[in-house]
Amino acid sequence: MFDLAGFPISFQRLVRELGKLPSVGSKTAFRLAYHLLAVDPELGGTLSAAIREVKEKVKLCEQCFFISEDRECSICRNTARDRSVLCVVEKPLDVISIERSGEYRGLYHVLHGLWAPLRGQSADSMRLKELVARVAVQKGSLREVILATSSTVEGDATAAYIVRLLQEQGVSTTRLAQGLPKGGELEYADDLTLSYAFTGRKAMP
Amino acid sequence: MFDLAGFPISFQRLVRELGKLPSVGSKTAFRLAYHLLAVDPELGGTLSAAIREVKEKVKLCEQCFFISEDRECSICRNTARDRSVLCVVEKPLDVISIERSGEYRGLYHVLHGLWAPLRGQSADSMRLKELVARVAVQKGSLREVILATSSTVEGDATAAYIVRLLQEQGVSTTRLAQGLPKGGELEYADDLTLSYAFTGRKAMP
Repeated sequence: MFDLAGFPISFQRLVRELGKLPSVGSKTAFRLAYHLLAVDPELGGTLSAAIREVKEKVKLCEQCFFISEDRECSICRNTARDRSVLCVVEKPLDVISIERSGEYRGLYHVLHGLWAPLRGQSADSMRLKELVARVAVQKGSLREVILATSSTVEGDATAAYIVRLLQEQGVSTTRLAQGLPKGGELEYADDLTLSYAFTGRKAMP
Repeated sequence: MFDLAGFPISFQRLVRELGKLPSVGSKTAFRLAYHLLAVDPELGGTLSAAIREVKEKVKLCEQCFFISEDRECSICRNTARDRSVLCVVEKPLDVISIERSGEYRGLYHVLHGLWAPLRGQSADSMRLKELVARVAVQKGSLREVILATSSTVEGDATAAYIVRLLQEQGVSTTRLAQGLPKGGELEYADDLTLSYAFTGRKAMP
């Protein structure tokens, strides 16, 4: 933390609070606080109001833990969605990415984290118990659980962990295909990606 | 702006407001909003309270425009400071840096900006009129005005502009020395720095 002595206490407190935001260091926190104080004082009012409004109104969907203003989110409430498929993702933004691809019409389950014991993220810190319970209740109507966590060490570990947990429930689990990204040149693909691309190769139609 | 449709309106608004902060893009704004909603909900309360408190309590010192909870800041009120020297800086953080160096015991004048017409920053957008007025009133007791703006194109231009404005007042103006930074190796110094270091060379004692 760099030296803030000399600034008013309330200003120091604002810098400290801003510094608790992810990827905001103490210098950035100072710059943000200065911006709110001297450059764009109006933003301070609208920003603190927006934070309070979100705190009051927005919660996580009780079923899939996506962001929602109601008990159930708009995707869970949409009767046109295919309720026999469940797509498990790490975070809300992943839902948006998948929705944008237009490829998927089922429901979601947002974990809010990945299994990363080395970073102190235990399996308890994500919505895993809730996933197991949800699958247990719905397994009669569930055809498939798609594990759409990232293709990283932690994403793979989480997917493997979930497969083991859901094994006894007798629901089919799948994992997103891994291989060359669209537009990715072979020359620049790393070894692991190439190896996955080979193992997962498909017959041309 | 990336796509936020699908998220609740109030959440979208928070992302937009956060995105107005300097150097916060739309992806970062989303991450911050998500953090406030799902990762650290308590921070939302303390942060919005801290913003409101700063808005209510903190202002700019009426004399030097440093950050202050009172009409005059602690430096201007300190009777032990040398009132015959005025150090002109770009921003409040520069005051802190100079205070930390322990080299200076006079008063300050914070411009809150530099003269940068190419970036749409006119001379009117900074506290320059206030500086001229202040020098006019105090010139009887003022010995020296130190122009401590950065050693950049804009810092130099601002200093040159101020010198011209203060010329008629008959107050002596100085500029911080430019040369090799302490610990800086000659090998890595750029041409301009080297040229300043040569021009400003001093006889060894």
